[in-house]
Amino acid sequence: MFDVLSDDLMQKMDAYWRAANYLSVGQIYLQDNPLLEQPLRIEHIKPRLLGHWGTTPGLNLLYVHLNRLISAHDLDMIYIIGPGHGGPGLVANSYLEGSYTERYPAIERNRNGLQRLFRQFSWPNGVPSHVSPETPGSIHEGGELGYSLAHAYGAAFDNPDLIVACIVGDGEAETGALATSWHSNKFLNPARDGAVLPILHLNGFKIANPTILARIGRQELTDLMRGYGYEPIVVEGDDPKLVHHTLAAALERALADIRAIQAAARHQGVTVRPRWPMIILRTPKGWTGPKQVDGKQIEGTWRAHQVPIASFKDPTHVQLLEAWLRSYRPEELFDASGKFRDDLAVLAPTGHRRMSANPHANGGELLQPLSLPDFHGYAVTQSGPGTVKAEATRVLGAFLRDVMKSNLDAKNFRLFGPDETASNRLDAVLEVTDKEWMAEIEDVDVALGPDGRVMEVLSEHLCQGWLEGYLLTGRHGFFSCYEAFIHIVGSMFNQHAKWLKTCDAIPWRRPIASLNYLLTSHVWRQDHNGLSHQDPGFIDHVVNKKASVVRVYLPPDANCLLSVADHCLRSRNYVNLIVAGKQPEWQWLDIDSAVRHCSAGAGIWHWASNGEDDPDVVMACAGDVPTLETLAAVMLLREYVPDIRVRVVNVVDLMVLQPSSEHPHGLDDKRFDEIFTVDKPVVFAFHGYPWLIHRLTYRRRNHFNIHVRGYKEEGSTTTPFDMVVLNDLDRYRLALDAIRRIPRLAGEVEAATARYWATMQRHKLYIGEHGDDMPEVRDWSWQG
Amino acid sequence: MFDVLSDDLMQKMDAYWRAANYLSVGQIYLQDNPLLEQPLRIEHIKPRLLGHWGTTPGLNLLYVHLNRLISAHDLDMIYIIGPGHGGPGLVANSYLEGSYTERYPAIERNRNGLQRLFRQFSWPNGVPSHVSPETPGSIHEGGELGYSLAHAYGAAFDNPDLIVACIVGDGEAETGALATSWHSNKFLNPARDGAVLPILHLNGFKIANPTILARIGRQELTDLMRGYGYEPIVVEGDDPKLVHHTLAAALERALADIRAIQAAARHQGVTVRPRWPMIILRTPKGWTGPKQVDGKQIEGTWRAHQVPIASFKDPTHVQLLEAWLRSYRPEELFDASGKFRDDLAVLAPTGHRRMSANPHANGGELLQPLSLPDFHGYAVTQSGPGTVKAEATRVLGAFLRDVMKSNLDAKNFRLFGPDETASNRLDAVLEVTDKEWMAEIEDVDVALGPDGRVMEVLSEHLCQGWLEGYLLTGRHGFFSCYEAFIHIVGSMFNQHAKWLKTCDAIPWRRPIASLNYLLTSHVWRQDHNGLSHQDPGFIDHVVNKKASVVRVYLPPDANCLLSVADHCLRSRNYVNLIVAGKQPEWQWLDIDSAVRHCSAGAGIWHWASNGEDDPDVVMACAGDVPTLETLAAVMLLREYVPDIRVRVVNVVDLMVLQPSSEHPHGLDDKRFDEIFTVDKPVVFAFHGYPWLIHRLTYRRRNHFNIHVRGYKEEGSTTTPFDMVVLNDLDRYRLALDAIRRIPRLAGEVEAATARYWATMQRHKLYIGEHGDDMPEVRDWSWQG
Repeated sequence: MFDVLSDDLMQKMDAYWRAANYLSVGQIYLQDNPLLEQPLRIEHIKPRLLGHWGTTPGLNLLYVHLNRLISAHDLDMIYIIGPGHGGPGLVANSYLEGSYTERYPAIERNRNGLQRLFRQFSWPNGVPSHVSPETPGSIHEGGELGYSLAHAYGAAFDNPDLIVACIVGDGEAETGALATSWHSNKFLNPARDGAVLPILHLNGFKIANPTILARIGRQELTDLMRGYGYEPIVVEGDDPKLVHHTLAAALERALADIRAIQAAARHQGVTVRPRWPMIILRTPKGWTGPKQVDGKQIEGTWRAHQVPIASFKDPTHVQLLEAWLRSYRPEELFDASGKFRDDLAVLAPTGHRRMSANPHANGGELLQPLSLPDFHGYAVTQSGPGTVKAEATRVLGAFLRDVMKSNLDAKNFRLFGPDETASNRLDAVLEVTDKEWMAEIEDVDVALGPDGRVMEVLSEHLCQGWLEGYLLTGRHGFFSCYEAFIHIVGSMFNQHAKWLKTCDAIPWRRPIASLNYLLTSHVWRQDHNGLSHQDPGFIDHVVNKKASVVRVYLPPDANCLLSVADHCLRSRNYVNLIVAGKQPEWQWLDIDSAVRHCSAGAGIWHWASNGEDDPDVVMACAGDVPTLETLAAVMLLREYVPDIRVRVVNVVDLMVLQPSSEHPHGLDDKRFDEIFTVDKPVVFAFHGYPWLIHRLTYRRRNHFNIHVRGYKEEGSTTTPFDMVVLNDLDRYRLALDAIRRIPRLAGEVEAATARYWATMQRHKLYIGEHGDDMPEVRDWSWQG
Repeated sequence: MFDVLSDDLMQKMDAYWRAANYLSVGQIYLQDNPLLEQPLRIEHIKPRLLGHWGTTPGLNLLYVHLNRLISAHDLDMIYIIGPGHGGPGLVANSYLEGSYTERYPAIERNRNGLQRLFRQFSWPNGVPSHVSPETPGSIHEGGELGYSLAHAYGAAFDNPDLIVACIVGDGEAETGALATSWHSNKFLNPARDGAVLPILHLNGFKIANPTILARIGRQELTDLMRGYGYEPIVVEGDDPKLVHHTLAAALERALADIRAIQAAARHQGVTVRPRWPMIILRTPKGWTGPKQVDGKQIEGTWRAHQVPIASFKDPTHVQLLEAWLRSYRPEELFDASGKFRDDLAVLAPTGHRRMSANPHANGGELLQPLSLPDFHGYAVTQSGPGTVKAEATRVLGAFLRDVMKSNLDAKNFRLFGPDETASNRLDAVLEVTDKEWMAEIEDVDVALGPDGRVMEVLSEHLCQGWLEGYLLTGRHGFFSCYEAFIHIVGSMFNQHAKWLKTCDAIPWRRPIASLNYLLTSHVWRQDHNGLSHQDPGFIDHVVNKKASVVRVYLPPDANCLLSVADHCLRSRNYVNLIVAGKQPEWQWLDIDSAVRHCSAGAGIWHWASNGEDDPDVVMACAGDVPTLETLAAVMLLREYVPDIRVRVVNVVDLMVLQPSSEHPHGLDDKRFDEIFTVDKPVVFAFHGYPWLIHRLTYRRRNHFNIHVRGYKEEGSTTTPFDMVVLNDLDRYRLALDAIRRIPRLAGEVEAATARYWATMQRHKLYIGEHGDDMPEVRDWSWQG
């Protein structure tokens, strides 16, 4: 156990650790006197103290030990820290190994730089207190807890030489996302993928409570880790010297185990799922900080979580802080100019081996575009609108299959889904690759194997977390999900969108591939699952985020879906939300028209319109089912009011509805007015909650005339047609809406209303018989 | 092992199981010939086959065995099934024990009733295919997976005589929420609370894949369960006779263990956390269904998940279905009239002992109102608006402390929070109760213990799931959460809101206490946590749900928060969302004014207005920080434009903004126009994303004049005042917005704009110095 570190090396590593701790405390507290060259005075201390100390010394300890491991074995390693509140520690280490100054030259490696480093922390126009996009070496925002381990596995997939050291906080370990993330080891292939080394940091406390995993005893905890499929290595202590030795030995053993697992898999083939090592590190919260303040124990309690000495009204607190800072002996760590001493600095790896400068943690640097087959080749051919039916997602599946095939060698594309790839009709992909599976395989299994590139697990959290980790390290992916259940990862989407937004303002962060969602099995076709599976609100959730990073597409048919998907796979730094059904539906546009339509984002469908230069009404729609109902309503209208003039408008790219000042895709007012008119009634059939259309269009000149129908939480297990009826989105209702709003048809309204109710009576019988639902819509030759 | 069941009893239980299975298959398939009195023909089969068979036989097996256990030991037990797709099984069992007919008299216990029972399933205007509010005995919607075990623990809290049998599907076990729910046993007190008996049903497959837990080997699985703190009892097999015996023995053992644990805790006191039993039941998916269809294995594979025989184009499939149905020997199970045979029916418990008629599963039947202290007694006293500061949530904390105290004997109130009760300044509650904690306790711990009624765990999923289970079984609760992270349970909120909406239409579902959220540590005061902690979008998410079940409150100060909280604790069947800050802020209303203001939902603040009969501008606000900025803007305006006439409007109840046709709280148009005028500019400062105000008001006459400021994803770690500046919500911007919109001040705009920019320049210096942020606002005597 004492073999790994010489006494000299241990002493130096301890000094390096002290330096990182000193810089961490300095960031939290100091605005001046960064090297303590003068006695500490109140005016050296920031007026507002913001930051998290408790987790930081442990993160710093692991950093210096991982540095030793990297240097000793020339490892390619990145560092993901779940307890991301420990931002000062990561900033400190990046500074110590020089990458911080490379990214931010004003933060020089001298006294001035130190002072700037300290002042900028948790300061207006400075850096956040958490690990954030501004932190070199990070792919993981430290604000919302629970996603570290999923990110770590995502980063490790298809990176055979990479080891992802992932610190799991014992607080975040209580979250749902983290609790299931341990099972990611059933999806990691030791031959093809890299390794994840989870390090559960038991510092024992959250902000106000002990943690569960620190209070269940060692046996239960190691049972739990074995149950999750890991071999735990326990390191425990509060004497730095002893912990240095045992931790170094533990890391050597873990690395040896990883190497043995990989060697076996790579030389003898992947046969069984290995039992990967993991480390349990139990050290005091706020270790090396003040033992007591005002008579209360700080170190080793939840009181060390944030700022251990929070008030300086008591002058002895200044002395307490000074003593704490001087306990790290800064004069031994920095030279007279304030530069970190060379004999310590050499302990860090160099160049890209530094965890804070590893290109995997700035994935855009490694990003290669996908090789994409020409999507025109997958188009549904048709002799005219409404002449053929197709399942949009099945058509997309063939395209995705060949995207997968074209990039098998590049190993940079994966498909993610919570047990739904086949249900969502993308299973053509399984013709060219398996679903990844490292757990046991039985005879009945189909398309499962260790080399699969389709990631299926019944956890939206894992799908999202893995995909984020995969994208952030410079690869590509596609996530298909039931529309209603994508809300499970609403908060993860928030954090990813915020990450992208922040990166937009950081020049050294290179663009990464967009996060592409396909939401299907959508609200209008939950025939047997009913109310619990009906929720189109994720669109609303997404459009709350910065316009620069979000895009929403509602392709009305398969060819439009192809065009949109191709576009999304080429895009960078966005979250693209695509909503499309999987059921057989009428098709409207040939592929060339689809491309033109999708490029414009919205447009008039002349073939479905008549007299469109001076329409009585604009029938607008967004979404596949609303498009069908709108077109059927148009047929009813021309039958009932032969001389009616109707303009049909379809919207694919929902963002065109916003003013161009609000979203880069927003139509300028002139173009919007050309399409939607400035004074004609607009009956708008929308896939989601109707008020979203109002929210997007309220600044438009004709907004007052826009009348929207959409989902309003009605219906459950029933026929698709009954669903649109119950939500007033059906063709009869849309036709009636139009008639009611056309002034010259005022005399018709009463008769049309009566006719509507008679139709609904028939409809009630009709759905009672549970028959076929969608009358056909074919003939587009206007006779009027 | 063969001691528990006599051969005769085993045979009868097997017959009971066959009856439940027969009725389950009948629901999925048959629209006629319910007793198979004629040879099965295609017209007896539903034209559209919707449902889930795979999990159902296992659920039915457990039901009959739990029935035996209940009868043998006179147990008070409810049944929560995670694999809620197995709806037909629960409906079948409720029908067999008579409670279904009691709730739905048309579903008689004869041939006609059987036919109706079969036809209504997954049929328009019938019942959903999942377990749903319509299912007697259920408190758990079976659509979105992952929440069964958290619901089970919530139901067990404070119900010492109740045992909650909770079936965890091996599919749902992969979700994050379920993966962390196992740890709920660290929060269950065996003396005070009831018991949860988790039964992990390993049927091996999801919709398209094997499950993780079925493919990790028995040792890892039992290690995992021991690591979670349970003692697993494994039951495994595919021979019904053997499984009957081993399952009966396993349940007896589990019950004995539960009773022993409870007896020890109740007689000798709670000393150590017990190792509760749990059962692992491994049986084939779709057990007793077709072995093969079209040459493909069905039973024991994922292909049994939904409808094993899905198409009847092949006429032999009708024979296959008939053989399957007849394998249950319906003629032995039902008499000539179609009634379930008495000698089998007597196996079920009676009255409230039936799991489908247990009042805990219709919690409103048991609901007792909270004893509430008079909230006036906790009011902040003040000599006028803006004369005193208070921390709103701390004031609320004192009230909640006494709510807790007043209901300690009734044991029907708990507070829930993800490690944030103290951070959210509700810690006065800890003066009268501890935080519940059954894991190890150390000397440093404070306010932790086995009798606590504050539920803290770092998992929003567990807080939400426990609270839902607690409410659905007839108790009361309050959930405080950081505003940004409540999105973690956005999907759980969806399902609960849908449950409440559905219950509104089910007469026998009695009203339950509302689910009360307090969102604090909100977007405007994330001074050190920054961007990741800033997200007010949950309001948008909530208002998408049915108006009949959602309420949103933004109290501007502590006294309003008291009034709102009191109201919410008295309300029923809603989700109440309260957003309020925790920081010291100026107070505006004395308690009587606060009550009047909150009852109205919105109103003119005359004391802050002048010339309000004919205002130049309406300055509206919703939320505590926007209210402060609005009032400060008013002070700037009257200084800069002494003769300006300003009306100040504050909105507490956001739902008043909607038309009364859209929400029961909506102001009628007359009252809305009285407050907001029909033609004056309205500058609206809003807590959340600004477009929500447009979405709520777009039908109002003066909507065109409403100009909204709110959060737009700007700012990170910075001062509170800088946050409002960066999002254009600051007092200077609001004042400028007003001046720009008042026609008679057209000549002032240029000077005001210049002044604004000069102010902002000073502001930049100001925040650079990181000083105090919020200038005081006190003097409300208008001089004009």
